[in-house]
Amino acid sequence: MPKISTRGTVMPASPIRKLVPLSDSAKARGLKVYHLNIGQPDIATPKVGLNAIRYLDRKILEYSPSDGFCSYRKKLTAYYSKFKMNINADDIIITTGGSEAVLFAFMACLDPGDEIIVPEPAYANYMAFAISAGALIRGVASTIENGFALPPIEKFEALINEKTKGILICNPNNPTGYLYSRTEMNKIRDLVKKYDLYLFSDEVYREFIYTSSPYISALHLVGIEENVVLIDSVSKRYSECGIRVGMLITKNKELRKTVMKFCQARLSPPLFGQIIAEATLEVPEEYMRDVYDEYLERRNFTVDTLNRIPGVYSPIPMGAFYTIARLPVDDTDKFCAWCLSDFEYEGQTIFIAPGSGFYADPTAGKNAVRIAYVLKKEELQNAMLVLEKALEEYNKIMNG
Amino acid sequence: MPKISTRGTVMPASPIRKLVPLSDSAKARGLKVYHLNIGQPDIATPKVGLNAIRYLDRKILEYSPSDGFCSYRKKLTAYYSKFKMNINADDIIITTGGSEAVLFAFMACLDPGDEIIVPEPAYANYMAFAISAGALIRGVASTIENGFALPPIEKFEALINEKTKGILICNPNNPTGYLYSRTEMNKIRDLVKKYDLYLFSDEVYREFIYTSSPYISALHLVGIEENVVLIDSVSKRYSECGIRVGMLITKNKELRKTVMKFCQARLSPPLFGQIIAEATLEVPEEYMRDVYDEYLERRNFTVDTLNRIPGVYSPIPMGAFYTIARLPVDDTDKFCAWCLSDFEYEGQTIFIAPGSGFYADPTAGKNAVRIAYVLKKEELQNAMLVLEKALEEYNKIMNG
Repeated sequence: MPKISTRGTVMPASPIRKLVPLSDSAKARGLKVYHLNIGQPDIATPKVGLNAIRYLDRKILEYSPSDGFCSYRKKLTAYYSKFKMNINADDIIITTGGSEAVLFAFMACLDPGDEIIVPEPAYANYMAFAISAGALIRGVASTIENGFALPPIEKFEALINEKTKGILICNPNNPTGYLYSRTEMNKIRDLVKKYDLYLFSDEVYREFIYTSSPYISALHLVGIEENVVLIDSVSKRYSECGIRVGMLITKNKELRKTVMKFCQARLSPPLFGQIIAEATLEVPEEYMRDVYDEYLERRNFTVDTLNRIPGVYSPIPMGAFYTIARLPVDDTDKFCAWCLSDFEYEGQTIFIAPGSGFYADPTAGKNAVRIAYVLKKEELQNAMLVLEKALEEYNKIMNG
Repeated sequence: MPKISTRGTVMPASPIRKLVPLSDSAKARGLKVYHLNIGQPDIATPKVGLNAIRYLDRKILEYSPSDGFCSYRKKLTAYYSKFKMNINADDIIITTGGSEAVLFAFMACLDPGDEIIVPEPAYANYMAFAISAGALIRGVASTIENGFALPPIEKFEALINEKTKGILICNPNNPTGYLYSRTEMNKIRDLVKKYDLYLFSDEVYREFIYTSSPYISALHLVGIEENVVLIDSVSKRYSECGIRVGMLITKNKELRKTVMKFCQARLSPPLFGQIIAEATLEVPEEYMRDVYDEYLERRNFTVDTLNRIPGVYSPIPMGAFYTIARLPVDDTDKFCAWCLSDFEYEGQTIFIAPGSGFYADPTAGKNAVRIAYVLKKEELQNAMLVLEKALEEYNKIMNG
């Protein structure tokens, strides 16, 4: 049997999806499993998007342009201008989800052995895409005590060497929910400028900010326009995860030209995804407001409840729909698996993501979990109760 | 401005799509452009596929499983069994088009510096995906004089070294239309077995075989089951290029496990694509027969007409919907560009793909073009006339 590639061998299994078999067997045993493990909203997709394909009159399902439909890219500029982002249609390349935008950004900017610096905990799949490109992620730990604020910029600077090509941030942050302040963004800008680095900025959660602090996009930063690569996606904001539509946005022409070569190789982004996403730009403001209010209530409830469970602590996330909570257990990898394989409370259990998956160092994050508050409040209520009972029983076993 | 990656710099622009700006300006000048450059069928997509989304009752457009819907993978086994391919649902991973299947196969099997051997001319994007994985394509030239039959297997063997990880074939072949015989496939099998190589086999055109010779899939070959990686796609067979649904199929469990890590990182293949592709499995036989007859007629007409143009030669392709033709010009890169930028015949011109894009060596294929017979016969008729007139005028200019 021929050898698997080293790349394929070191590629991590998704820390979120790797417990799926345990969850499947829990369900097979008849348990109700609360999915707090994945950013899959239970919110209805806007009707204006769904209707676009219902009444579609297309006879041939052709390739679309490699950079996406021009009509869609043009309309997106109006969307971004609402956030004071000055983006032209030509700056936008439509990708197959935000995932492909990250992959192509890394492919076009990073060579094997190159390094990027990422505040941790971080979205696990950045690591997977870095490995695909042969690049290395150097983590700088943010801490729960500081609510996962940007670590001191000196810690970033200390890691910079001749292999360093960029900094990656997610803002508002998945998994911490942190929103970078203007002061923090300016520090990042100065460092990016000083060393002429790329700034990869994943901003897919900009609609979900629960604080009066302003949203500072990487594209708001003056003087590093050619350095910024913005990652975006419609998945979370319109509950359209399945259609696989994202964007790679950059003012850097040469980079766009390079990214386009990767886009041409894969021919085109999904046709129906683009049709739906384009129509969804007409979503009523009321929809967005309702979704926002819903998440705000869920956040408040989740964080408040977590902090009432003995030994549990969660900072108050300012955005996105996740929080990183510290649990009173030694090893959340074991605890999360145990919840699915050996525990139940009144026929229910919980599926939460172990913290270790959000760090390049596999020994980090052992007492943390990521909780996605993507369920209705009544379900969250039950899930929090199940978590409390699980912690009680787990610690009884561990200490007994 | 930070540096573009070396990978991104050496990545070739698509030889087929790179002339698009010239074609766009020809259209802007009011010319009718016949697109013989791209495998975009003009055939109507089966209604059974289109209807599947029209009457869909889904409220949330969720992620699908990373390996695709189980129901779809199960039904596909019946499709493959019609071709005597013994494939289980677990052997199949649904990808975002055949493109992603090639990329993930390379990512999981090949490390930077590894080599694969490919008979040339070959589908241009294999090169792009190889570069993405840091791997090298070693071409073995097939020749127009032999109708692009498999080159002597000794030529493959001569290239094998410690870096060689696999052989890649496309069968029936894009761009040549060649169908590998049982004898040829057995030779490939023996070589793959002798050196324990991967055999990547792209078989997306199996429905389009215009000869009584049997279709020998790589998965029909006995004794190399763990070595074969089959690439498939619904794009061409159902005129569903835009929905981005393909398959990576292998009996090699360890490889599947590795590929799944790449699949999990990009979360899921397109939702609507899968719904349409699954429904399309119920396509009436009559549809497939009509499409087949249509392409057969187009092939016969195209090849016959090409061979009547002075100085032009095309072998008779046995499958797919392309042919490689030799033209009486020095440099088809220049000729194809000239057709779009400087030529017209009665308000019309042609867009054909220069041969050089189908070889790793950029100096090869200079007197060849790939012609996709994906237009209605009346349009092909006009296009062939335009080609004849273009050759006349081009050679008058060149010789004058």
